[in-house]
Amino acid sequence: MICVLKPDVSKAREEQLIAWLKSQHLDVHISRGEHHTVLGLIGDTTSIDGELIESLDIVESVRRVSEPYKTCSRQFHPDNSTIDVGGVKIGCGQDLVMIAGPCSVETEEQIISVANDIKKVGAQILRGGAFKPRTSPYSFQGLKEEGLRLLSLAKRETGLPIVTELMDIDHIDLFDDVDLIQIGARNMQNFELLKELGHVDKPILLKRGLANTIEELLMSAEYIMAGGNEKVILCERGIRTFETATRNTLDLSIIPVLREKTHLPIIIDPSHATGRAHLVPPMAMAAVAAGTDGVMVEVHNDPLHALCDGAQSLTPQQFEQLAVQMKRIKEVVG
Amino acid sequence: MICVLKPDVSKAREEQLIAWLKSQHLDVHISRGEHHTVLGLIGDTTSIDGELIESLDIVESVRRVSEPYKTCSRQFHPDNSTIDVGGVKIGCGQDLVMIAGPCSVETEEQIISVANDIKKVGAQILRGGAFKPRTSPYSFQGLKEEGLRLLSLAKRETGLPIVTELMDIDHIDLFDDVDLIQIGARNMQNFELLKELGHVDKPILLKRGLANTIEELLMSAEYIMAGGNEKVILCERGIRTFETATRNTLDLSIIPVLREKTHLPIIIDPSHATGRAHLVPPMAMAAVAAGTDGVMVEVHNDPLHALCDGAQSLTPQQFEQLAVQMKRIKEVVG
Amino acid sequence: MICVLKPDVSKAREEQLIAWLKSQHLDVHISRGEHHTVLGLIGDTTSIDGELIESLDIVESVRRVSEPYKTCSRQFHPDNSTIDVGGVKIGCGQDLVMIAGPCSVETEEQIISVANDIKKVGAQILRGGAFKPRTSPYSFQGLKEEGLRLLSLAKRETGLPIVTELMDIDHIDLFDDVDLIQIGARNMQNFELLKELGHVDKPILLKRGLANTIEELLMSAEYIMAGGNEKVILCERGIRTFETATRNTLDLSIIPVLREKTHLPIIIDPSHATGRAHLVPPMAMAAVAAGTDGVMVEVHNDPLHALCDGAQSLTPQQFEQLAVQMKRIKEVVG
Amino acid sequence: MICVLKPDVSKAREEQLIAWLKSQHLDVHISRGEHHTVLGLIGDTTSIDGELIESLDIVESVRRVSEPYKTCSRQFHPDNSTIDVGGVKIGCGQDLVMIAGPCSVETEEQIISVANDIKKVGAQILRGGAFKPRTSPYSFQGLKEEGLRLLSLAKRETGLPIVTELMDIDHIDLFDDVDLIQIGARNMQNFELLKELGHVDKPILLKRGLANTIEELLMSAEYIMAGGNEKVILCERGIRTFETATRNTLDLSIIPVLREKTHLPIIIDPSHATGRAHLVPPMAMAAVAAGTDGVMVEVHNDPLHALCDGAQSLTPQQFEQLAVQMKRIKEVVG
Repeated sequence: MICVLKPDVSKAREEQLIAWLKSQHLDVHISRGEHHTVLGLIGDTTSIDGELIESLDIVESVRRVSEPYKTCSRQFHPDNSTIDVGGVKIGCGQDLVMIAGPCSVETEEQIISVANDIKKVGAQILRGGAFKPRTSPYSFQGLKEEGLRLLSLAKRETGLPIVTELMDIDHIDLFDDVDLIQIGARNMQNFELLKELGHVDKPILLKRGLANTIEELLMSAEYIMAGGNEKVILCERGIRTFETATRNTLDLSIIPVLREKTHLPIIIDPSHATGRAHLVPPMAMAAVAAGTDGVMVEVHNDPLHALCDGAQSLTPQQFEQLAVQMKRIKEVVG
Repeated sequence: MICVLKPDVSKAREEQLIAWLKSQHLDVHISRGEHHTVLGLIGDTTSIDGELIESLDIVESVRRVSEPYKTCSRQFHPDNSTIDVGGVKIGCGQDLVMIAGPCSVETEEQIISVANDIKKVGAQILRGGAFKPRTSPYSFQGLKEEGLRLLSLAKRETGLPIVTELMDIDHIDLFDDVDLIQIGARNMQNFELLKELGHVDKPILLKRGLANTIEELLMSAEYIMAGGNEKVILCERGIRTFETATRNTLDLSIIPVLREKTHLPIIIDPSHATGRAHLVPPMAMAAVAAGTDGVMVEVHNDPLHALCDGAQSLTPQQFEQLAVQMKRIKEVVG
Repeated sequence: MICVLKPDVSKAREEQLIAWLKSQHLDVHISRGEHHTVLGLIGDTTSIDGELIESLDIVESVRRVSEPYKTCSRQFHPDNSTIDVGGVKIGCGQDLVMIAGPCSVETEEQIISVANDIKKVGAQILRGGAFKPRTSPYSFQGLKEEGLRLLSLAKRETGLPIVTELMDIDHIDLFDDVDLIQIGARNMQNFELLKELGHVDKPILLKRGLANTIEELLMSAEYIMAGGNEKVILCERGIRTFETATRNTLDLSIIPVLREKTHLPIIIDPSHATGRAHLVPPMAMAAVAAGTDGVMVEVHNDPLHALCDGAQSLTPQQFEQLAVQMKRIKEVVG
Repeated sequence: MICVLKPDVSKAREEQLIAWLKSQHLDVHISRGEHHTVLGLIGDTTSIDGELIESLDIVESVRRVSEPYKTCSRQFHPDNSTIDVGGVKIGCGQDLVMIAGPCSVETEEQIISVANDIKKVGAQILRGGAFKPRTSPYSFQGLKEEGLRLLSLAKRETGLPIVTELMDIDHIDLFDDVDLIQIGARNMQNFELLKELGHVDKPILLKRGLANTIEELLMSAEYIMAGGNEKVILCERGIRTFETATRNTLDLSIIPVLREKTHLPIIIDPSHATGRAHLVPPMAMAAVAAGTDGVMVEVHNDPLHALCDGAQSLTPQQFEQLAVQMKRIKEVVG
């Protein structure tokens, strides 16, 4: 960690800061420039709060040299991690993992029909919302327990492992049959929940928050891993910008950035990011070309009927075409 | 709600959509322009998901005419709400409410000393963190129960009501003596927590998320109020932008915007927003000039000693000067 | 255009607004809901300033139904436009157009060597900066006239058409031999320059501004086209967000969004967007998978020597590998 | 400037970089940590392009220690600058400067009436748009030369100095009678225009771009000052964020940040930032409380008649009330 002092800092205050830093078990390497003094902090700076030091009135700026995370860092774990989700390997770099299914679980007929459809096309994991995070308290909040029961039925019927969102650790007992627990964007920095997930023995699909940096996503993964659960899969689903033509801006450069920084697998969700069905295939294909381990796509069996729930979803036919294209691109990028 | 259809939508699909809308208990008023057909949806659209309708491939755009919230709306509650926090009235438009105290509760001596200092200057409520949300799992997470105990001591000593952050509803029993429960920016859309707060009989200080719109802040207030707890105070603490000279960008225009949209009181937190002590006084004064009901400021008794915890905090002396200025500005704006 | 009035607007003020709107040659279609009155404005609203109407105190909100642009709209020109750049067709949907070359033109040897290298690999157009927009007045501003002369040499040597940035219309006489004039992100809303470009008989490569919406990019294209020059190619080069791991956030969803809205061709520039060489290939491949007409990539012949100019650039060898991959992906997406 | 190298950089490449840095007339101070080597660059780094060095594959990150600007820096010019605009002193820290007037100059009657109105209330400078930057080529672009002529009339009538926007240096001859030249947000990084302004002998009001950092605003001021014109006044008019309740987000923390970094005066424009008349007074008062040197407010004489031009404007009566409040706040903050 590098700490640049302001010009004209008094000797006394400088020494006070250095003494404090040393009391935090850091070596301090002092370098004096023309106008500024620079402190190099050597040792384990993981637990040092750079933002707080930066807020000191004698400090101009602070910059980490080492990353603030460890367990998820590629530096200490050079090989890609492979995470097993009900028998499906994610992150081994071989096959493209396709996760598909409806936004919300609605009926037994619906979920089983979609599950069969996507399985035929080669999707390996079934998604479907049972507990739904909704901006308005007056909107439909999902089928909850009943939704989980229907997902289990579809799993037994097709053999596909299932992924669905957990919003409250108190619901964890209901998730026994769930293979991959999704944590939504709005809970990415729900630190109490992250700590609890550290003690859960299931893989976690951690979605990036709408205004969170890639580093913060890794720090949230680190929370889970620090608790003992190293089975974390990262997911990009769009960030918030001033652009209004899409619901969010899908940040695909996260793929090569994460490849450099972490060994954890990456999944891209183009359905939530774009918000419109016809934007999903080009962005899904782009994600594969950029090297994602998998994509998560909304697929609905009857968008004509379920007019308002299926519209950012593809039909099974559209998904089939997309799946073929994605596999061909995956062959090119290897 | 207004729904604009795309040009060249087939009669059949248009009728299908209209039928669905009517099944949601809405009247549909059709208006045909040169290129576009516009549907006016009349009735209670609060539970309609505009984003989902907008994602339909036959729909160009959707726009709410009525606001999606009710209980917190000024339209249905024209007078300002006044919320009682341990005897202090917030929102009555008379006095400026000053909330002050350290970032984290550290020791009995610290919290009692700061409490006495800020009381002398006229602060009406004591703040202090016991449970601390931290980006890194390796950072200090607060004194927790012990921190709450020390806050209670300071409350008994000075008579000041106390506000502190709740991160998990399972901790609620520890908050018996707390007068105002703070919900942090990162939990603004933790919907399960919001629902639980609807059943709590204490005022809630709800902080705006780093990338949340003012409307979303109101929808989160609506979650709490819909559950039965109407004692919600809104708090601006900075939003995330591309600017790096400040930790976040304090959006003071939220004050007149909220005045128009809601009857709930407003508190501004310039300490977290700016991240540096010398930026706090001008922004606190600006907040008062823009008409805030109160400000929440970090004050530390010994920033020299606690170098790294007190640096976005003012000293009691700096806070005293600021308090005088704020009161004089409050007199001007009335 | 739809204009929603506030509740409780007086009859007199409503009529005044309607009279004004009619004086702008619009038909006004009035629709009264429970709380709000909605005005549908029918006619040519292209020259109406929606933002100004929205700022009226009796107006709740304004929404365009028709797009504010015409000449660049796909609605009035359903087929893709193909633009000829020195014999290279861009936008015909057949071949992927690869534009490559150094950030800045430095020496005759450099530009001719790079031009030969990229031509061998199949690039069809040579890029190189002569006039360089720089944040600091103290930074190197390019070789200017001499840079243009060297680009012409490279063009004669290889037969490749050339593209380079124009920053001031007063320099236009120097651009006689230039085949494609680039307008940089910072000049996307330099309206006086855009007007002048409407009278230039050369294709224009218009880069999206760092904080501009897709609609604003189209409005700037419309400026050029309204002046008579319909040869506009649009270019995405990253937008500004809070993320710091990349220089900017490359918004690839612009590709399918533009396909829907306009007939103009699209080029993606991953070099400026990401700012680091190793992020360029995955993002370039993603752009091709998402359906771009072309990519523009920085290539340097000797990054080892020119350490500080070539670092977001690929070596010719890296570009060769990338070119092979991009062509294979182009075959998949067709 | 501090340059952090990646772990595992080869000796050869490190030496190559150091040699290059030395060739740029910098001393290099090497400091080796556990994992990283840090280079301290000592000397004049103003012309060094940090972004380019950061893009090198052997470099982890780069951080400036000294600011990249000189002439506008408070470090080399500790006292506030005072700039004379037609006899009005801006920046002397005494009086609050009020600039007011209509968005666009429309008629002789209009501009003279407004000029008289605002003068009565104590405004010291008249604003009015003659050349208007408009997103759409089909919108009214201002009265141009005729607008400037009418502004001159109003100046002769009232004695008020005038400020109006320049969009093209080729129009400079028309600006003889203009006392303060405004450069709009969209031209903040029109570097060719900035260079030309360096040779103009008039004060410049430089508006911050919609997505520009405070440091970039200062670099653009530096462009003008480096050319010889040191009479630059900085203006905040809102930045672009995801919030939609206001047109832009007015970043008032720019005031204390600029106070620390520069000696140049600061003007706040709440009219363009918020886009609605009723939001202007609270934000104008907040700006005064935060310590601005002046405010620039849109005032229209007949908003009822000129429905669509005057709506983010205050009436003269509203401006009068605001002026009284602002002066009283100015007395408090000194």
